[in-house]
Amino acid sequence: MTEADTGAPFRPIRPGDTVGILGGGQLGRMMATAAAALGLKTHIFCPDEDAPAYDVAAARTIAAYDDEAALERFARAVDVVTYEFENVPGRTASVLARLVPLRPGALCLATAQDRIAEKSFVADLGIGTAPFRAVDGEADLAEALEALGAPAILKTRRFGYDGKGQVRIGPGDRPKDAHAELGGAPAILEGFVAFSKEISIIAARGADGAFAAYEPCLNEHRGGILHRTSLPAGIPDALADKAIAAARRIAEALDYVGVITVEMFVVDGDEDILVNEIAPRVHNSGHWTIEGAETSQFEQHIRAVCGWPLGSTRRRGEVEMINLIGDEIGTWPAILAEPGAHLHHYGKANARPGRKMGHVTRVVPHR
Amino acid sequence: MTEADTGAPFRPIRPGDTVGILGGGQLGRMMATAAAALGLKTHIFCPDEDAPAYDVAAARTIAAYDDEAALERFARAVDVVTYEFENVPGRTASVLARLVPLRPGALCLATAQDRIAEKSFVADLGIGTAPFRAVDGEADLAEALEALGAPAILKTRRFGYDGKGQVRIGPGDRPKDAHAELGGAPAILEGFVAFSKEISIIAARGADGAFAAYEPCLNEHRGGILHRTSLPAGIPDALADKAIAAARRIAEALDYVGVITVEMFVVDGDEDILVNEIAPRVHNSGHWTIEGAETSQFEQHIRAVCGWPLGSTRRRGEVEMINLIGDEIGTWPAILAEPGAHLHHYGKANARPGRKMGHVTRVVPHR
Repeated sequence: MTEADTGAPFRPIRPGDTVGILGGGQLGRMMATAAAALGLKTHIFCPDEDAPAYDVAAARTIAAYDDEAALERFARAVDVVTYEFENVPGRTASVLARLVPLRPGALCLATAQDRIAEKSFVADLGIGTAPFRAVDGEADLAEALEALGAPAILKTRRFGYDGKGQVRIGPGDRPKDAHAELGGAPAILEGFVAFSKEISIIAARGADGAFAAYEPCLNEHRGGILHRTSLPAGIPDALADKAIAAARRIAEALDYVGVITVEMFVVDGDEDILVNEIAPRVHNSGHWTIEGAETSQFEQHIRAVCGWPLGSTRRRGEVEMINLIGDEIGTWPAILAEPGAHLHHYGKANARPGRKMGHVTRVVPHR
Repeated sequence: MTEADTGAPFRPIRPGDTVGILGGGQLGRMMATAAAALGLKTHIFCPDEDAPAYDVAAARTIAAYDDEAALERFARAVDVVTYEFENVPGRTASVLARLVPLRPGALCLATAQDRIAEKSFVADLGIGTAPFRAVDGEADLAEALEALGAPAILKTRRFGYDGKGQVRIGPGDRPKDAHAELGGAPAILEGFVAFSKEISIIAARGADGAFAAYEPCLNEHRGGILHRTSLPAGIPDALADKAIAAARRIAEALDYVGVITVEMFVVDGDEDILVNEIAPRVHNSGHWTIEGAETSQFEQHIRAVCGWPLGSTRRRGEVEMINLIGDEIGTWPAILAEPGAHLHHYGKANARPGRKMGHVTRVVPHR
């Protein structure tokens, strides 16, 4: 790691200081309220005119991520910078990191933004992934399909999220159509994985190298979008330990500071995991921690990026978190009326289909 | 109750709407973050240039409470108004209530602002208070002391808080000096109460008349300022029921909407309570609810003033909340390093002696 990765020299952060956050969505919003509880101010940098996070931040900069003058003013106005999304452009990160500590650093961004780099990095650590091949053109695709077999999933190398930028190639499908569907963008072909469960590890690494993971959580998707996260995940303890150890190895290899999320498939009769994706940030599958754990992922992330000690990841009971997607947010009155249900409404004006509008968490306490 | 008490006609509040809050201190700040979790925007009205609540609010108005033009603009910009302090001037309340629903209403403000009105109101409900006499001049004071005996406590009728505006008159003291110490202001003499404990009931009443109380909490003061709140309070169940019933009678008589706090003395060998003070707002002795109860007092208050259902008041374990007063806030690094301790730093710049700078909550879960 070089200084360019982690940003300008770090001076101790104290309450009253300002955390800069790139991105103004619900993750930035929940990070900002967690920071406020700790006495910190937040400053949101986001191109959107009416991002949900502005409502709970001390300051906002509405500008494009390539507006270097705006980035420099932002960097000089804050004490540390973090982000709520992994697609922070490399140039944006480096402009900021020259002036202010950027946490997590640039290396994890570069790794997480490119599915080939990500999978190669994980595989190089001796951790399993789905079999994969880079696909830059039609010839590559044919060769990759030959090697991995159908069904397989073709994904854009960059900028995919919530099932966007991916297409399944079944035994009878024409690979050419699939590639065309992705606009011919540089892609990765991933072999089919017969998994029994999808889990994720939400973990944090402190500036001092301390590591703290929450228990693995079980994720269920609908239409490529996370629908439900629950704990306990119902996997053997040994597998949970293995999953957490893999996340730790990844965080350490990235010299990571902050909350990191590692999505995994459970395979081989609940005896092994394959890493599916790394998100260098707080994550939807960690929203349960707000009420379900002693320290929320948002507070944990703020603690880490400020160079403070990590908090307890102890779970408070059996937990489920259900996303409210699109017009599902219309159920908010029923959720408010349900004893013990915790409504989180992100304050977004338009409930477009597929848009994450809120979530609800239910905790059944340990007896 | 007349419409003038509760404000302009109420229309249903929905996420995306704006809650106006009078006062920008830590109570407003914690109310604002609770409102944000429910998808609401907040607008803080406060005369201070740098009030802590601004940092987590969508909008602010910095103006005096008697600036009627500013109040009218504020009222038109929000969907409901509430407040974080009981000394909202009557004129401020009435200017606002003409334009927008004011919750809780004006009647409870008038009652809580005047110690004579407050105690008379409570006594008229058949609920015990310390014996008291109004003191408007020297003659009154002599007569009152004659009736109640020494020691007794002379308090200003209005604007007292955190032990300010009160002086103890012991058997040998000159009553004249005590009254002079209060600047000769209209006062109340309260007879000595031999209490074993101080408790408070934090409760909420919904717009539909629903009522929900947290369990009584035990309060310990130092130098007139709340030092520690803990639960369980260690009082008999029958007394807890009696205390909650008294708070309910008070809330109903005020046609109250929102969170109300009733401070009480435990007397007669833990068999009875006397009401000491009513605060028409969220309260320092309710901060434990953020982590210690299923719904925080701040969310509960927001639910009530929005006309939404009240949340569960279930307690999560044994709880203690300790205030960080003045330079005690300097212990924040140790609190962050303590597993399971929840730091709340209010983001105030100057740690003046006696100033509430933050608090820490510890919860030992039920086994």
